[in-house]
Amino acid sequence: MEKLVSLCKRRGFMFQSSEIYGGINGFWDYGPLGVELKRNIKDAWWRDMVTGHDDIAQLPGAPSPYEMTGLDCTIIMHPQVWKCSGHYDLFHDYMVDCRESKKRYRHDQIQGRWVEAKGKKIFATAGSDSESPEADIERQALKFFGMRSKNADELKWDGPLVSLTTVDDFEQVLGPDAKTPGTLTAPREFNLMFKTTIGALGGEADTAFLRPETAQGIFVNFKNVVDSSRVRVPFGIAQVGKSFRNEITPRNFTFRSREFEQMEIEFFCHPASSPEWYTYWRERRFQWYQDMGLDKRKLILREHTPEELAHYSIGTADIEYAFPFLPEGEYGELEGIAHRGDFDLRSHMEGKLDPSTNPMTVELNEEGKPKHRGSGKDLSYRDDISGERFVPHVIEPSAGADRATLAFLCEAFTEDEAPDDKGKMQTRTVMKLHPRIAPIKAAIFPLVKKDGMPEMAQDIYRTLKKSWNVFYDEKGAVGRRYRRQDEAGTPFCITVDGESMQDQTVTIRHRDSLDQWRVKADDLTDELRKLIG
Amino acid sequence: MEKLVSLCKRRGFMFQSSEIYGGINGFWDYGPLGVELKRNIKDAWWRDMVTGHDDIAQLPGAPSPYEMTGLDCTIIMHPQVWKCSGHYDLFHDYMVDCRESKKRYRHDQIQGRWVEAKGKKIFATAGSDSESPEADIERQALKFFGMRSKNADELKWDGPLVSLTTVDDFEQVLGPDAKTPGTLTAPREFNLMFKTTIGALGGEADTAFLRPETAQGIFVNFKNVVDSSRVRVPFGIAQVGKSFRNEITPRNFTFRSREFEQMEIEFFCHPASSPEWYTYWRERRFQWYQDMGLDKRKLILREHTPEELAHYSIGTADIEYAFPFLPEGEYGELEGIAHRGDFDLRSHMEGKLDPSTNPMTVELNEEGKPKHRGSGKDLSYRDDISGERFVPHVIEPSAGADRATLAFLCEAFTEDEAPDDKGKMQTRTVMKLHPRIAPIKAAIFPLVKKDGMPEMAQDIYRTLKKSWNVFYDEKGAVGRRYRRQDEAGTPFCITVDGESMQDQTVTIRHRDSLDQWRVKADDLTDELRKLIG
Repeated sequence: MEKLVSLCKRRGFMFQSSEIYGGINGFWDYGPLGVELKRNIKDAWWRDMVTGHDDIAQLPGAPSPYEMTGLDCTIIMHPQVWKCSGHYDLFHDYMVDCRESKKRYRHDQIQGRWVEAKGKKIFATAGSDSESPEADIERQALKFFGMRSKNADELKWDGPLVSLTTVDDFEQVLGPDAKTPGTLTAPREFNLMFKTTIGALGGEADTAFLRPETAQGIFVNFKNVVDSSRVRVPFGIAQVGKSFRNEITPRNFTFRSREFEQMEIEFFCHPASSPEWYTYWRERRFQWYQDMGLDKRKLILREHTPEELAHYSIGTADIEYAFPFLPEGEYGELEGIAHRGDFDLRSHMEGKLDPSTNPMTVELNEEGKPKHRGSGKDLSYRDDISGERFVPHVIEPSAGADRATLAFLCEAFTEDEAPDDKGKMQTRTVMKLHPRIAPIKAAIFPLVKKDGMPEMAQDIYRTLKKSWNVFYDEKGAVGRRYRRQDEAGTPFCITVDGESMQDQTVTIRHRDSLDQWRVKADDLTDELRKLIG
Repeated sequence: MEKLVSLCKRRGFMFQSSEIYGGINGFWDYGPLGVELKRNIKDAWWRDMVTGHDDIAQLPGAPSPYEMTGLDCTIIMHPQVWKCSGHYDLFHDYMVDCRESKKRYRHDQIQGRWVEAKGKKIFATAGSDSESPEADIERQALKFFGMRSKNADELKWDGPLVSLTTVDDFEQVLGPDAKTPGTLTAPREFNLMFKTTIGALGGEADTAFLRPETAQGIFVNFKNVVDSSRVRVPFGIAQVGKSFRNEITPRNFTFRSREFEQMEIEFFCHPASSPEWYTYWRERRFQWYQDMGLDKRKLILREHTPEELAHYSIGTADIEYAFPFLPEGEYGELEGIAHRGDFDLRSHMEGKLDPSTNPMTVELNEEGKPKHRGSGKDLSYRDDISGERFVPHVIEPSAGADRATLAFLCEAFTEDEAPDDKGKMQTRTVMKLHPRIAPIKAAIFPLVKKDGMPEMAQDIYRTLKKSWNVFYDEKGAVGRRYRRQDEAGTPFCITVDGESMQDQTVTIRHRDSLDQWRVKADDLTDELRKLIG
């Protein structure tokens, strides 16, 4: 992983945001190669899910043909959107403050052990930044009891390492950075939405939020889309865009960051067929990552247990990848596919249906009434053939563009052996990115800088430029030029050599197999079109 | 304009954000057609400026060949970025509050006239939302002096309509919504950056801003890009992304909104050749809008006067378009091309150079020292051939993606006549969008729903889907299907008819000329590739 992070910076895939000012935790920029990679991933998703989708065919596994359309909503929306969606009340972490150290911690990330010595018992703890909590906790306990490490066996441990969430009373809790017990406050809610203020007045009514997900923009536009296009249920609305979460502990490179990009679909279907659509989307999206180059053995499709499910959800599955920064056997989420029922559309209506007969509808206040007022708009759908009116159920495949980018980079990073200019085998670093997402599709080299080779290579460069991002390089030994392109993930290198000047053929060298073959220069566009797809 | 706004909503180009909750002022969503249009505009810009750019040719008008590369930075950056860029201190509007009406106004948007009657003299005003300020001011004056409109000629006007900024003392100023003079406060700075807070602590040190422009992300990454790629000066870095400005009076549809998308290039060159590069980019970008379909007669390239220029700028030109919502003869900005000298890179360095000898370097505090500490990083560049070290000068072509989208929509909107299904001429609404940016490139129709026509049309649909966003429609009379596509801006309609079943040819109908011609179905991909470009 360290090698990958270093290559990402060295070759311009990713940089820490505002690096010259010491960086800003949880924010990452994409460099010249990274921006092309991420664009290609988002474009591949958009083409495969939206513009390239066949609206009239019945795809394998799908209950029926379906239409797909797109949307692009603002990051700042009306604050009522977040009240009705539940994010205002429920999208938070619990935090505890330490009155002694003045530090703040995520409640569920403090770990500790009960320990007794000299007739006193405390819950000694370590914070989430601890790399070896057991050892840190022992050190903390020894210090607290005024004991030396050689006397560590006099500590009487009561139970294993557990989360602070298992402790009800904090009187005996010794905070991660505290010297006396009982300095931690009770857990308090901390909303993860970034807040801002609109307009010049700055009152409470002008408070707005940066969206924590793109999905709600789709729900509030459901009626606009149905009214303005001729889509019929079942259909999906796709959106790609930035979202923001004020994570307390961003970490693992770009995996958990505070500003990130999502690729979300809200798929609207009849309630009766929604379980089938749920299955369809789960499989469809799981396959997509494999089609784009992720190794099936590193992927899992994890169905949530009933305890994990939101109260309105019939089922949720995560597509997870064995990221190399995770411990052996652990996986990190790439995408969640959730059956959301009609929870979202109903929440944005008015609670017209009696909440007591349908507990899925809306959050209730203490009187059993909807806590926040919906829009009052009718978001139900009328099927013009059957005449039936219903609130569609929703299947939500929600993917992270940055996580997908990171997974493709992790999968692509390879060290193998390849011959140098003298034919001697040398270690090489190669990014085996799928040709569709590779930042540069082909590099064109004249073997030497004379005998008309540069001119012919430049002609080829200009012809291919019309269709792809290609690169021309005439500097240095050809072996070194190959290596540079291998690190950039360029799948094909095209070399113009002496033979080219005779018969107008060039060699294509394949990045992964190192195979080389000759094609007519005039056939290159067709050949690459086949190879890239 | 009203017709266009109505079509935009009806056909799904643009919706007001959060419309079901009453909307949110200054924020706009793109619907199914709009998202494709805007994507195509951004992609055309990226391809023409970045991935399709010929790095090795000397383009017409360019002083030399140059390289182009991309970047994608976060919206939230280190707050110090905005202190050093000048936005923290200087990016504001002046606001005045009214103690009587409790309203707030932009100082420069209040207009008024001096007027005397009954021995008293006041400055009567109208706010920026006034559609006829002269009439409103007269009404306000009559009311204040307790006079009837038939006695309006007793008002003694002293001078023409002028801005409140011409008035020093507000004692005699009658605020736009006030009944007594002297209720307006002195102008106060109001920073246009949206503020937010990072992390759980919420202290002043955690205050961050939503970027008001994408440009600064490029400047702070200048060194990263030079170090990680092999670009040599002159070269440009391009970025597309959202920016935010807390505008007091967003207006004119999407023209002035609070959340918007920019397409910016920072072009780094040697100081000696920077005036030539400035001229090159001005012409290059002016031509681009014409290439994408804007009428040259509605475009102007307006060079800023010396008084308008920022203190560090050698020249700035605006590309402006005669938007239909503006008064006759007025133009609205699409893009600014600014010669920024080395102001930005120096601001992000440390003021290493003596500011007294170079007033362009950094904002100074009262002691003549840089007001904010730069990064301390050396952002100069060393030319590896000449050995010269210098801080590059910057040419900045900064375009608005939403404004470009709006201009293309305005230009495209046309009402003309076309024959209906019975050959009778009827008024039609047609969006004459350039084929490269049209949301749907082609629609495929079977003339009737029988005799194998739907099957053949569907085969064509599937073949073309591989390359473009195309649409299949078999419902209703073919004339009505044409009209729907005309409104969506689809440049080509392909019809499968009886003759197609005999000779495998289909008709292509051109949206603008209404010309129809027959081509072999097998040649459609090549034909469309030529037509769309």
